[in-house]
Amino acid sequence: MSYEHLFTFEATPVKFGPGAALDAGWELQRLGVKRAMVVMDPQVARLEAAQQILSAIRAAGTEAVTFTDIRVEPTLASLETAAAAARDARPDGFVALGGGSTIDTAKVANLMVSCGGQIMDYVNPPVGGGRPPPSPLRPLLALPTTSGSGSEATTVAILDLPDLGVKSGISHRSLRPAQAIVDPQLSASAPAGVTAAAGLDVVCHAIESYLSRPYHTRPRPASPAERPPYQGSNPVADVWSAWATERGGRFLRRAVHDPDDTEARGMMMLSATMAGVGFGSAGVHIPHACAYPVAGLRHEYRAPGYAPDHAFVPHGLSVIVTAPAAFRWTYDADPARHEHAAQLLTGQPVTGREALPEALRALMRDVGAPLSLREFGYSEADLPALVGGALKQQRLLAVAPRTPTEADLEGILRAALDGA
Amino acid sequence: MSYEHLFTFEATPVKFGPGAALDAGWELQRLGVKRAMVVMDPQVARLEAAQQILSAIRAAGTEAVTFTDIRVEPTLASLETAAAAARDARPDGFVALGGGSTIDTAKVANLMVSCGGQIMDYVNPPVGGGRPPPSPLRPLLALPTTSGSGSEATTVAILDLPDLGVKSGISHRSLRPAQAIVDPQLSASAPAGVTAAAGLDVVCHAIESYLSRPYHTRPRPASPAERPPYQGSNPVADVWSAWATERGGRFLRRAVHDPDDTEARGMMMLSATMAGVGFGSAGVHIPHACAYPVAGLRHEYRAPGYAPDHAFVPHGLSVIVTAPAAFRWTYDADPARHEHAAQLLTGQPVTGREALPEALRALMRDVGAPLSLREFGYSEADLPALVGGALKQQRLLAVAPRTPTEADLEGILRAALDGA
Ligand SMILES: [Zn+2]
Ligand SMILES: [Zn+2]
Repeated sequence: MSYEHLFTFEATPVKFGPGAALDAGWELQRLGVKRAMVVMDPQVARLEAAQQILSAIRAAGTEAVTFTDIRVEPTLASLETAAAAARDARPDGFVALGGGSTIDTAKVANLMVSCGGQIMDYVNPPVGGGRPPPSPLRPLLALPTTSGSGSEATTVAILDLPDLGVKSGISHRSLRPAQAIVDPQLSASAPAGVTAAAGLDVVCHAIESYLSRPYHTRPRPASPAERPPYQGSNPVADVWSAWATERGGRFLRRAVHDPDDTEARGMMMLSATMAGVGFGSAGVHIPHACAYPVAGLRHEYRAPGYAPDHAFVPHGLSVIVTAPAAFRWTYDADPARHEHAAQLLTGQPVTGREALPEALRALMRDVGAPLSLREFGYSEADLPALVGGALKQQRLLAVAPRTPTEADLEGILRAALDGA
Repeated sequence: MSYEHLFTFEATPVKFGPGAALDAGWELQRLGVKRAMVVMDPQVARLEAAQQILSAIRAAGTEAVTFTDIRVEPTLASLETAAAAARDARPDGFVALGGGSTIDTAKVANLMVSCGGQIMDYVNPPVGGGRPPPSPLRPLLALPTTSGSGSEATTVAILDLPDLGVKSGISHRSLRPAQAIVDPQLSASAPAGVTAAAGLDVVCHAIESYLSRPYHTRPRPASPAERPPYQGSNPVADVWSAWATERGGRFLRRAVHDPDDTEARGMMMLSATMAGVGFGSAGVHIPHACAYPVAGLRHEYRAPGYAPDHAFVPHGLSVIVTAPAAFRWTYDADPARHEHAAQLLTGQPVTGREALPEALRALMRDVGAPLSLREFGYSEADLPALVGGALKQQRLLAVAPRTPTEADLEGILRAALDGA
């Protein structure tokens, strides 16, 4: 077997700063958009900032058709609703104003109106047809309002398929937004619990990418078209992953505990985007693979800061809860790199197998995140289902620094049950 | 006056690795290019690698029309020749295979065939009309063969206007290549002198960007369209500038002294591109402003490694020669940042005003670069002309950490005369 000899790197253009969102109209004009479908989180749509952005878009001469029928964690059905709205609205460009769910919804609506066909045609195999978009998409301007998903910087949209009992995604470089505007003021109203969950997701994106298997240990693809989007760690992705890890360690506690700390909030917004650039190249693996069943199987947890009538495990919490156990298990693949990740997170010269798990637990504790799967309602009896759900995510597990067996995943999830 | 509140960041997509150049055909197909004008450095065109790339392009189904009439340091006339050839060839995309001059020639030929008009219409004011391209350009695939200019990652093309006695440029985001392929094997035949000059240019791009004035000290533009391409240092550009500085300090000596050190050569190729990403956002200033007259006024120096019949000062040498004196003078703007740059370059905990000038002189000495302007044939009598030439580069001097007066520039150039 010969090994991969190259890696690729691509970043969404970013405009960053407080007040940058008011450039939305100018950016749409630059992108040639005359009629935009503005996909907005319904909570965000009520904020004055959203109205100001709509005014700025219209003042610059772009028509704006709004769409707010977004589901947190989009399903095939909710995405079909958005696609139908896009077909009716006939926009020549899109704006997404919200968190990862909103941006992913706009990506899929754009795909459907630009390229036709059915959503399932494009979903990653084996769940869907894995068809590459046959033509370019229309320009999408993404304005994230949470410092979490990094969707503004990635080529991926995640969707829930409740009928099949799985989550999957659509992944192609043409899904990348044409421009991101990262405006820290848009996250100013996020409750502490939301900032914490989103920030823990950022830290996982960064550390999983940093610890993913080196790109040159993957088999060489038969053709450039078969190169996967998640390539493993590489010198360019490493820079972003390390940067976002260090920023997360330094600024997440401050952003959670002091809503007026604009420096910390801005740095977490920028870290979310830059971690997105990093994991868009390197990839995430074990904690994200485990997060699918953790978020999917039980809906008993009421997350502080989220709507009280909706019991669910926010994505960031579903990811971080297995991270200490996962990185304890991956430690042997590259102890020095694990220790370096812990040093970036703590700013201290920590060493040993427990350094990274301990640094993560300290951060989780300090921002009020649950430390164990039991807090989400899971028990030993759920382990087989959790393991089975994680094992389905082979696309992610392929870039883990060690490839876990079923028994390895059981060990990781068992440890996470009790927050070890 | 109110100050700038935001910064922007945009990177050319990069594919990096030994052998990556053979993906050229696949990338052109992905970009929809059916007929490419392949702009090649004439020296590079003779290499087997160039023939293999042409074969790969044709094998993938793209027609290739070659053009090799490139001038090192393109002039208005040489660019007009390339534009005329492009009009005849009617390509729907471009490939550039060579150093900065080749990539810049391809950018301008693409601009002319895509947008029409005269080259001078688009040249930066006050020299040219400063007209923004009225339409998108065709896709340009850039394959750098030297580890220097970073042109594959920038939105700028530099040209010489001998009739006016100035150098100027065309600068617009639509000039950015659609894709870069950075293949260390393409620089394998570069002589040591060429690797040294190119690498010193990289180090200057990185350090000048890192030390450029912070973006939030610039005046706020009246509209987003008036935001200059060189914005000053910012948290994202800083990451690349610091990274390339550190890599330059660690790998340039090795790349110059051992042509078989493929790790060092690869790291310098990647540093060139990433420093280009950094200075494309932050900007270069005093050493690059001084380099225009240093390269332009006297043509007596015969650079080792370059064609022996052509006396000139290679760009990298014209830049680095004033860098020690320039950074001694800018030190007071931010001593800690200057010391950090010196620490990145040396890997040592050096401090004080002389730390960075001394680190640069040590690197210049170790790679065989001239340390003084006298070695290029300059004397005291040339100072007024050198100062006058540097003062013309107001677009660059605007991002210097301190704004130099005529007397300040004279002091810097006088120190550089004797290599101080
Ligand atoms: Zn995530
Ligand atoms: Zn340069």
